[in-house]
Amino acid sequence: MQYKILDKTSVISYLLGIEDVVKFFEDDDLEASEIGDGNLNFVYIVSSKKDPSKSLIVKQAVPYLRCVGEEFPLGRQRMTYEIRALEQFKQIAPSFIPNLYHTSEEMSVVVMQYLGDHQILRYDLIDKKYFSNFADHISTYLANTLFLTSSLHLSSKEKRELIDKFNSNTELCKLTEDFVFTFAFMQNETNNIETIKQNQPLANQIFNDNEFKTKVLELKYKFMTQNDALLHGDLHTGSIMLNSDETYVIDPEFAFVGPFGFDIGALIANMVSAYVHHKIVTKDQEYQIWLLQTIKDILNQFETKFLDLWDSQKNSALLVDNYIDKDYLKEYQKAFVKNIIQDSIGFAGCKLARRIFGVAGVIEIRGIEDKELKIQAQNMIFDIAKQFVIYHNNINNIDEIISTIKDKTIVL
Amino acid sequence: MQYKILDKTSVISYLLGIEDVVKFFEDDDLEASEIGDGNLNFVYIVSSKKDPSKSLIVKQAVPYLRCVGEEFPLGRQRMTYEIRALEQFKQIAPSFIPNLYHTSEEMSVVVMQYLGDHQILRYDLIDKKYFSNFADHISTYLANTLFLTSSLHLSSKEKRELIDKFNSNTELCKLTEDFVFTFAFMQNETNNIETIKQNQPLANQIFNDNEFKTKVLELKYKFMTQNDALLHGDLHTGSIMLNSDETYVIDPEFAFVGPFGFDIGALIANMVSAYVHHKIVTKDQEYQIWLLQTIKDILNQFETKFLDLWDSQKNSALLVDNYIDKDYLKEYQKAFVKNIIQDSIGFAGCKLARRIFGVAGVIEIRGIEDKELKIQAQNMIFDIAKQFVIYHNNINNIDEIISTIKDKTIVL
Repeated sequence: MQYKILDKTSVISYLLGIEDVVKFFEDDDLEASEIGDGNLNFVYIVSSKKDPSKSLIVKQAVPYLRCVGEEFPLGRQRMTYEIRALEQFKQIAPSFIPNLYHTSEEMSVVVMQYLGDHQILRYDLIDKKYFSNFADHISTYLANTLFLTSSLHLSSKEKRELIDKFNSNTELCKLTEDFVFTFAFMQNETNNIETIKQNQPLANQIFNDNEFKTKVLELKYKFMTQNDALLHGDLHTGSIMLNSDETYVIDPEFAFVGPFGFDIGALIANMVSAYVHHKIVTKDQEYQIWLLQTIKDILNQFETKFLDLWDSQKNSALLVDNYIDKDYLKEYQKAFVKNIIQDSIGFAGCKLARRIFGVAGVIEIRGIEDKELKIQAQNMIFDIAKQFVIYHNNINNIDEIISTIKDKTIVL
Repeated sequence: MQYKILDKTSVISYLLGIEDVVKFFEDDDLEASEIGDGNLNFVYIVSSKKDPSKSLIVKQAVPYLRCVGEEFPLGRQRMTYEIRALEQFKQIAPSFIPNLYHTSEEMSVVVMQYLGDHQILRYDLIDKKYFSNFADHISTYLANTLFLTSSLHLSSKEKRELIDKFNSNTELCKLTEDFVFTFAFMQNETNNIETIKQNQPLANQIFNDNEFKTKVLELKYKFMTQNDALLHGDLHTGSIMLNSDETYVIDPEFAFVGPFGFDIGALIANMVSAYVHHKIVTKDQEYQIWLLQTIKDILNQFETKFLDLWDSQKNSALLVDNYIDKDYLKEYQKAFVKNIIQDSIGFAGCKLARRIFGVAGVIEIRGIEDKELKIQAQNMIFDIAKQFVIYHNNINNIDEIISTIKDKTIVL
């Protein structure tokens, strides 16, 4: 089907041509409404008129950035990579990916499960909600998606085929290279001028911190050249929807084959933002403890699950049976996973710092209304970020990460 | 043109259909003969009957390994990557690549300059020939091909397009993964049984050296996942043809986007093999000194030339102008190049060690006729290889590399 932009009316006739969707709605009359909060894409919720609980989400990419308009062109091919990533992740981490009813690379459309009973994690963390299963769920998601798309599991041929599928997600990779690793740490027109004005001393400090920026450069180089595994590519707490029972990861349009630590780092950075928010704004100690414990659980459980997957793995691109003595292999594997954790913390540092003055802030920090508290929070974020970026290679264990966060957030 | 296998007769009619070739031969009558020493491909020399100095090389890949026969299938697509690499390298290191008169991915054919006045470096090194320009030439080739195909020079988009062109060279990358990094260090049917029998103690030592093998695994992982730059992929001294004035690099069918250090490492490994050969067999001290000096010159000049290219580089995928203070950038660049050298030596170690018992030996070691001397040479090769593989990350400067080679080759 040739590409055309759908609207509230044409989306329904489009859906009526898709067998799986028709089956889902059982011939009910349908109505569509637009969900206004999509930054990049048009998102519709399509429901049965008779039974509004029967709903699906239709997401279509347009060849520009939806929230700005046609004057900011952005290839709709990003949906091609989102579709491929959703399909790939659905196979290897099925319970964490919405059900897919239809995908079309030509139409840049995906039709998927409506997550009506789930909230976006970012807002839940601001609202001090507790999720006892979250660390378990997301660590399983991370271990499965990263291990099972890596050279530790795939054959050499399968790995190259995977790279082929995602290598040309150039435009969105470039956005990350620019906005996560570069522009937020220098004078640049894309930075948030108003935010900089409010905390000029910190802006001066960051823009002139050449030690920090050199280490960021190393991490940027790793981001660009290390093809470990298929990444979500933008795994912040706005890409996670959950309730007490279920956790879903959505919006993988930044997917590409990149370094193991990048998704983990994105997640940890956003958990740390939430922590700093509560340290400074709500001062809720119990919730702070839960956030730190959750970070610790995610990292510990990721390690265990990743190593468990590896233990049950026979031949792969990397390892041939009987190549090496078991004890040496164990040591190698432990060092390998430690290295993933170190990289993750380095990437977390970049992700934290770029949110301070860069084009895209996070509401739990940039949205703090009290000026003084906001400055405090920003300074605290950079203290942690700097420590993460400069010393991530020295991290010996996960407790040290938690201690670093605590040390840098002591309010005197 | 649909693929068909050429022979001595049909190759001429094929060439007569190519304008640039016809122009080259100026309507002379042609004759073709097969050059028998191609391992993988059919290679013809086609000459003017009237003036045999007017000659071109025609190389065609067949869907099997030529030296074994149809029972060893190997996709002729390898020629696709050889063609792409020749064309790419011709643009960025023109004086080191033969002139190309015709290429056809469909026919798996390349027609190129006949290097009648040039010898294969491997044999020249055995014959104790001196080349005063070689270090200069090959270091320029390495600096240009590696820097100009990396994220230090290309834009993010150009780099991904380059990866796209070479990513599916799966079969030949897999050969390297298996034969350079795996099978030669364990009991495996592909190893050279006769050679193992002649030096069983060393075979036992290598196959059981888990410390060495663990470090090889790290280097194999880097080979598989680090996409720094477009590599030749098999830059041994048999892939270099030269005379006192000119140096040509040929046969890049293993080309892919991989780690910076791999080509440099392959070259150094083969220079070290030649050194060990002369240490043990000819005992020619002057030539040994020249070989070590040449290794040193290659590495030093590579560093200088790579850094010079970087200094004259403006924006690239990695660096945006004014991102970082010049002094910090200098330090970063120095550390970056030091890291390339370290990796190169690690890869050189793998390359050296795999030639001892692996499927493909090198004549300067495996061809040593005196049994005792051969064993001495093999043991010496492994001593160097092990030092290279295990300690390459500790190397501080190029003199240390030369000292290591010397230390491990002291004949008591």
